[in-house]
Amino acid sequence: MTPDDFKLGMRRLAAGVSLITTTNRGVRHGLVATAVNSVTADPPTLLVCINKNASAHDHVAEAGLLCVNVLSDEHEAVAGRFSSALNREQRFDHDEWRAIATGAPALVNCLVSFDCEVRQQVHYGSHSIFLAEIVGLEVWCEAISPLLYLDGKYRYLGEPQSSLLYATA
Amino acid sequence: MTPDDFKLGMRRLAAGVSLITTTNRGVRHGLVATAVNSVTADPPTLLVCINKNASAHDHVAEAGLLCVNVLSDEHEAVAGRFSSALNREQRFDHDEWRAIATGAPALVNCLVSFDCEVRQQVHYGSHSIFLAEIVGLEVWCEAISPLLYLDGKYRYLGEPQSSLLYATA
Repeated sequence: MTPDDFKLGMRRLAAGVSLITTTNRGVRHGLVATAVNSVTADPPTLLVCINKNASAHDHVAEAGLLCVNVLSDEHEAVAGRFSSALNREQRFDHDEWRAIATGAPALVNCLVSFDCEVRQQVHYGSHSIFLAEIVGLEVWCEAISPLLYLDGKYRYLGEPQSSLLYATA
Repeated sequence: MTPDDFKLGMRRLAAGVSLITTTNRGVRHGLVATAVNSVTADPPTLLVCINKNASAHDHVAEAGLLCVNVLSDEHEAVAGRFSSALNREQRFDHDEWRAIATGAPALVNCLVSFDCEVRQQVHYGSHSIFLAEIVGLEVWCEAISPLLYLDGKYRYLGEPQSSLLYATA
């Protein structure tokens, strides 16, 4: 098992795409993550794995709060902005944000925002696993059309398969 | 934040579907999970969240090994068999399995099987988070067509969007 084997295999695990945000000492930070999971409903808790080299990692750890914004298929440009090191200061200028409970910026019009307080940080090699209790939630969008990540690319869900698109007698 | 709020929000987080298997004292066990994530490439490690009430939980903990089999869109019936308490003894009779490294059953023809040794078990309320080092891997299927779970239902990826299906001048 080499790191390349690992990456080859992991490209085959599909995931929703989330934007993780935090506010530390009055400054907003963010990163795109696919390693987000439900852990337990009581108390409502999720986990996020973040690379220790990510610029936002230490801010999440220091502030002890984060907001998980689950992206819709209309948010590929948002994901692009937060995946690039360019214009880091201007990342938050393009979209609408509001605070829910912790003060971390929640993205208006994403599928759901989970506003969280970090309860435990598990250090594991290159990454931290943040166990975070959800203290506020906003749900947007009637239709649930997620942005997905698979095989190194963003993907979309197909339309529910009704199939017949055109027929001629 | 109630458990119902939590569930409502989590229905909006899409995920790939995996079949987690183990072998304990010569008996095979399995369960379907969506809470599977990459943790770190060095050493290659993933995590799996498993409800402590799941019949396979204690077997994974006791044996200290598990195999994550990432399901394709042809595996909805397999997922169904392992999600039901019916015919638990016969669950492994319908498909082809083989051992990779640990002896846990790997599903032939899934997207990828990660065969793992558990390195750490984090207890968190109703669930355990198993941090597992990948010691063997098998990759199947040229096309990567995952089984997805969203909003309480299995879903499939759409065809890559080439879009124009029919036009009349």
